Amino acid sequence: MATTKAKPFIHPDFLLTTKAARELYHGYAEKMPIIDYHCHLPPVEIAEDRRWTDIADVWLGGDHYKWRQMRSNGFAERLCSGRGTDGCASGWEKFEAFAKTMERLVKNPLFDWSHLELARYFGVTERLCGASAKRIYDKCNRQLKAKWFSARGLMKKSNVAVVCTTDDPVDSLEYHLAIAQQPFATQIRPAWRSDKASKIETLKVWNDWMDRLGAAAGMAVKTYDDFLAAMAKRHDFFAQAGCVVSDYGITEIFAAPYTEAEVARIFRKARGGKAVTPEEALKFKSAWLYEGLKADCRANWTTQLHYNCLRDLNGAMYDVMGPDTGFDCIGDWSVTENLAKLFDRLEREDALPRCILYSLNPKDNEMLATVMGCFQKAPCRGKIQLGAAWWFLDQKDGMRKQIEALAALGSLGNFVGMLTDSRSFLSYTRHEYFRRLLCQKLGEEVEKGELPNDLKWLGGIVRDISFNNANEYFGFKA
Amino acid sequence: MATTKAKPFIHPDFLLTTKAARELYHGYAEKMPIIDYHCHLPPVEIAEDRRWTDIADVWLGGDHYKWRQMRSNGFAERLCSGRGTDGCASGWEKFEAFAKTMERLVKNPLFDWSHLELARYFGVTERLCGASAKRIYDKCNRQLKAKWFSARGLMKKSNVAVVCTTDDPVDSLEYHLAIAQQPFATQIRPAWRSDKASKIETLKVWNDWMDRLGAAAGMAVKTYDDFLAAMAKRHDFFAQAGCVVSDYGITEIFAAPYTEAEVARIFRKARGGKAVTPEEALKFKSAWLYEGLKADCRANWTTQLHYNCLRDLNGAMYDVMGPDTGFDCIGDWSVTENLAKLFDRLEREDALPRCILYSLNPKDNEMLATVMGCFQKAPCRGKIQLGAAWWFLDQKDGMRKQIEALAALGSLGNFVGMLTDSRSFLSYTRHEYFRRLLCQKLGEEVEKGELPNDLKWLGGIVRDISFNNANEYFGFKA
Amino acid sequence: MATTKAKPFIHPDFLLTTKAARELYHGYAEKMPIIDYHCHLPPVEIAEDRRWTDIADVWLGGDHYKWRQMRSNGFAERLCSGRGTDGCASGWEKFEAFAKTMERLVKNPLFDWSHLELARYFGVTERLCGASAKRIYDKCNRQLKAKWFSARGLMKKSNVAVVCTTDDPVDSLEYHLAIAQQPFATQIRPAWRSDKASKIETLKVWNDWMDRLGAAAGMAVKTYDDFLAAMAKRHDFFAQAGCVVSDYGITEIFAAPYTEAEVARIFRKARGGKAVTPEEALKFKSAWLYEGLKADCRANWTTQLHYNCLRDLNGAMYDVMGPDTGFDCIGDWSVTENLAKLFDRLEREDALPRCILYSLNPKDNEMLATVMGCFQKAPCRGKIQLGAAWWFLDQKDGMRKQIEALAALGSLGNFVGMLTDSRSFLSYTRHEYFRRLLCQKLGEEVEKGELPNDLKWLGGIVRDISFNNANEYFGFKA
Repeated sequence: MATTKAKPFIHPDFLLTTKAARELYHGYAEKMPIIDYHCHLPPVEIAEDRRWTDIADVWLGGDHYKWRQMRSNGFAERLCSGRGTDGCASGWEKFEAFAKTMERLVKNPLFDWSHLELARYFGVTERLCGASAKRIYDKCNRQLKAKWFSARGLMKKSNVAVVCTTDDPVDSLEYHLAIAQQPFATQIRPAWRSDKASKIETLKVWNDWMDRLGAAAGMAVKTYDDFLAAMAKRHDFFAQAGCVVSDYGITEIFAAPYTEAEVARIFRKARGGKAVTPEEALKFKSAWLYEGLKADCRANWTTQLHYNCLRDLNGAMYDVMGPDTGFDCIGDWSVTENLAKLFDRLEREDALPRCILYSLNPKDNEMLATVMGCFQKAPCRGKIQLGAAWWFLDQKDGMRKQIEALAALGSLGNFVGMLTDSRSFLSYTRHEYFRRLLCQKLGEEVEKGELPNDLKWLGGIVRDISFNNANEYFGFKA
Repeated sequence: MATTKAKPFIHPDFLLTTKAARELYHGYAEKMPIIDYHCHLPPVEIAEDRRWTDIADVWLGGDHYKWRQMRSNGFAERLCSGRGTDGCASGWEKFEAFAKTMERLVKNPLFDWSHLELARYFGVTERLCGASAKRIYDKCNRQLKAKWFSARGLMKKSNVAVVCTTDDPVDSLEYHLAIAQQPFATQIRPAWRSDKASKIETLKVWNDWMDRLGAAAGMAVKTYDDFLAAMAKRHDFFAQAGCVVSDYGITEIFAAPYTEAEVARIFRKARGGKAVTPEEALKFKSAWLYEGLKADCRANWTTQLHYNCLRDLNGAMYDVMGPDTGFDCIGDWSVTENLAKLFDRLEREDALPRCILYSLNPKDNEMLATVMGCFQKAPCRGKIQLGAAWWFLDQKDGMRKQIEALAALGSLGNFVGMLTDSRSFLSYTRHEYFRRLLCQKLGEEVEKGELPNDLKWLGGIVRDISFNNANEYFGFKA
Repeated sequence: MATTKAKPFIHPDFLLTTKAARELYHGYAEKMPIIDYHCHLPPVEIAEDRRWTDIADVWLGGDHYKWRQMRSNGFAERLCSGRGTDGCASGWEKFEAFAKTMERLVKNPLFDWSHLELARYFGVTERLCGASAKRIYDKCNRQLKAKWFSARGLMKKSNVAVVCTTDDPVDSLEYHLAIAQQPFATQIRPAWRSDKASKIETLKVWNDWMDRLGAAAGMAVKTYDDFLAAMAKRHDFFAQAGCVVSDYGITEIFAAPYTEAEVARIFRKARGGKAVTPEEALKFKSAWLYEGLKADCRANWTTQLHYNCLRDLNGAMYDVMGPDTGFDCIGDWSVTENLAKLFDRLEREDALPRCILYSLNPKDNEMLATVMGCFQKAPCRGKIQLGAAWWFLDQKDGMRKQIEALAALGSLGNFVGMLTDSRSFLSYTRHEYFRRLLCQKLGEEVEKGELPNDLKWLGGIVRDISFNNANEYFGFKA
């Protein structure tokens, strides 16, 4: 115990308690490059190789995970996002509030991630709390001055091979094109996120977006056919810019029955400024989801479906702060029938793309892992994937559940592995976190005799899940 | 193995298998007083300091957990509740039937709780089974004669600081007022449970209750406005009697759209003795749930929402035995949207009270833990809480799941902790059980290096969850 | 580690890591005979004592678990089922493809089951992979020539006391009658599976089946009353042939309101060749489910309800290959209310049979375990059962969840235990797998002090769950 006490929380064998786990991690996982095929990093910051001067900016500038926890610990909005009606506190004040919040976050992923980031990027190994806050704050801010501490520098230090950002079909991709002019060791690719096309209920916003789509595609978007044609143009443009992956952020899976004529009529109605009914909205969304996946299949892209998320619950805060400020939650819709219907329709037309299914609700893991088993198809290995534990589930318990469900009901060996889904350049430690957890899980079972003690074989699988599978699946050739 | 065999099942380190766990429990948790902020103890028994002469009465007089298990083990109703059509067996016969039932309850919470109660209150450490039943029965009945063995004596022995009972708004609170005249070391407070106001479908019962409400409030209850006014009067009366907490036992979360005029009409219809439609009932329930929470907020109370429970499934038994006799189950409604709608509406009016969310369905843990994160608000720490594992879930697996979900998605450090929800004065051992489990969980992770080995810090959190958080949250000042 | 490395994956203490677990398994579980009360073995193969010449036939002739995994690993249909449009590969080619698939199935039950079967029936203990495939293939095929290697020989070797097959009410049971003429150590009984009676939406198939029912019952089936009468005749015929158990494979639980007159009209309409509406279909299904359970109760049979399964998702493959080819998934319907309604109605008429509830969705475990608690009834011990982890859940994680939920919310000691649900004579190793897991679970808790260290008592429970409970519950008198 005495020696344990002396050991810092983050140490080389963090989370690795068996010999097999340590051998799998250090011998196979640790050195593999990172593929981050879904994140929210701003391309501009990569293009301009952004730097920072205040750790409070890095950590608390946009991370609504942290804001939520700070609110939940009784801190006023000025100390959290600084975007509320009560003004904005200083960097140090915010950092101290977060440090005090950390004292309560026992077993929370933020606790682990933050300490991992402190250790890996700032060389800090003491526990962050109110008492240590100032010391750590100052040390981090000194570190930020290091030459390598920039957007690209962090990617290099983290051994990142590929990054896919999240981009709007109407985006000019100017920063992606700029990056392509000055490439570096990490592939930076855009990804297609067309959610705004779908939100026909918010009529004004939707119509404005359709106007922007028309401008981007160089054509008028008056009819549903115009819309599909304009989207096809943008899809091609994205493909030329290196895009190979799309992403749909949806509540439930849309698969209502509709006719082309109905959807054309609904589209015209909405473009004409008339509000559509919920049933009409659902028909339109169902049509677009189907067309979107079909287009992805044609382009040989991979589709990501992120569902069972309800966004912007807290209207009072939304009115002040807008979206992506920490007011989203896990939904509990039943989706099996609709998902089966959508995939069946596409498969009958040989138009089902490679697809990664993510539910924000962990109760769906087993269901999804069996639905996907019905649509696997040669010659792709693991054509339909159960996505990594997503968002709120991106923690030990969530990861363990995803790994268990996938291994028991699918094929763990074909898993394309981890992504950060993050807005921060420091989040690559989540790949480390995931890899440690995976190795610990396999290592534990080896020690218990639940898996054969063949570390060469298991190490190969660890390497595949860490890097090779994603590299092959998406066709990155990294 | 030999020495292990000599050790009784319940021993000082029961459930504590690591050094860290033992240190956390014995050094921090064990001595903290108990706050039992939700239970079903009859105030009259506290007022009159009830005593017992037969352990069969104590254990089998009203505990429908035990009845269920006895039925499931093939025992006739006369040996279980003794309230069926086949008469009532003697205390000894019932106790023996329960002892035989215990032989089959491997890994069931009743097995653990019963042995804990035997050890803590009766000094019995041998395993209860058919063979040991008579010996244990006689010893327990001798123990019941001890001077300290009474309602208040058990509270004292168990170091109980606060108890909140469960009371009907029409209740005179006479026993609470009597207790206030003869206070003792434990604060005894009423709690507001207005479920009967909601059950508009059972027209006769509902109308009778409305009549009683009128009588209690000293006014006629003819209209919906009368109803709200009468409830407000009773709410004030409860507050004066020390009430600071309400409780809503509901199936799903009611948040149907309605207008005031509609609800007024529905109320008049039902008061006029005409059956309402399911849609009308839902509108009324939605209105009352909203008004109820608003009233709680105004009074600075804490609201408890207990949902996803379906009651009185077995009509054949209900007709003979009535409610609360062991025929309830876990429901599986989807509630995210409605819960979000209700909270959003209240938050927009700054009328959302401190609130504890309990689902009887463990699949809801993660969802609830993220919904609550959207409505946390300064200056309260942990304003919205994920309630302790409730009812059927009040066992090791249920507790572990609640702790995991809360820690991963919320802030475990702010948890207001355990309650008994019990009808028995012996149930305080469930607090011990919970604390041991909590310490074991944290201790295990310390040993595995998943938590920093800082027992002073973790011990503080254990103390907070055991007592301090609830004391502060509810404002008990115990 | 060196000695561990030398140990094969499957060894005498496979999955048993504590002394208590080993003592429970080897001392109590291992020698108990097997009761397999639900499987899909073809009676003809038992009657004719089938033999095999190619392990590829045994393993890949009909096992759609394996086909799914092979498809998911990118193998063409000719190498999986061999029933697609691309022809059929040789036995060796298929076996090799499966061996390569095994390399990716880390932690999957197929990995464990396959190695258990290799060890128990073929004496193979090396890991199956591409490199070892030929060696293992040849050895297995040599083994298949052994005298004892036949349908009945495998049952004898596996110590199988009872097998219930799955039979259509219109079946002549000729092979069951033939087996009865040449009985052997294993009781072979038919089981009643009337799903085809229910599928009124597939009008042509349904009407053909009704004609076959009429032929089997020796009467015209024109009206709903005819249908019930014909089914009653077949029910009696099955009972005479030794049937004591029925099985309903349904999507959700059907309990829509209906009148006899409505159902009679719907039945006439469908028999007249007119398509029924979804609402009509639901009424008919609800009526038949109720009548089916009532008939089972009258006959003193046990009913099995298998639900939350969605079948034949992939229409493109269904059109080529038909049902039971690996395109089914877990459903996520909410069923509590309907299940409660159905059971309540039957219980009011004292017509609720002994019943085993299986959901394919593990999120339902806790809910089911509490619903069943509302309908337990003397004198039967464990009248309503939470079924063993079914189908996709028939793996370590699924079994552990089922055991936890049952133990915490029901009575583990009364569990009727494992079944194979299999089409293969090699699947009896799944009973071994389950027993090892059960013993490991109990043994672990003994070592941690979560259960009393009384192995005689626990061993008795292990024996009951392995054999005695099922033998008594179904009345097999084996």
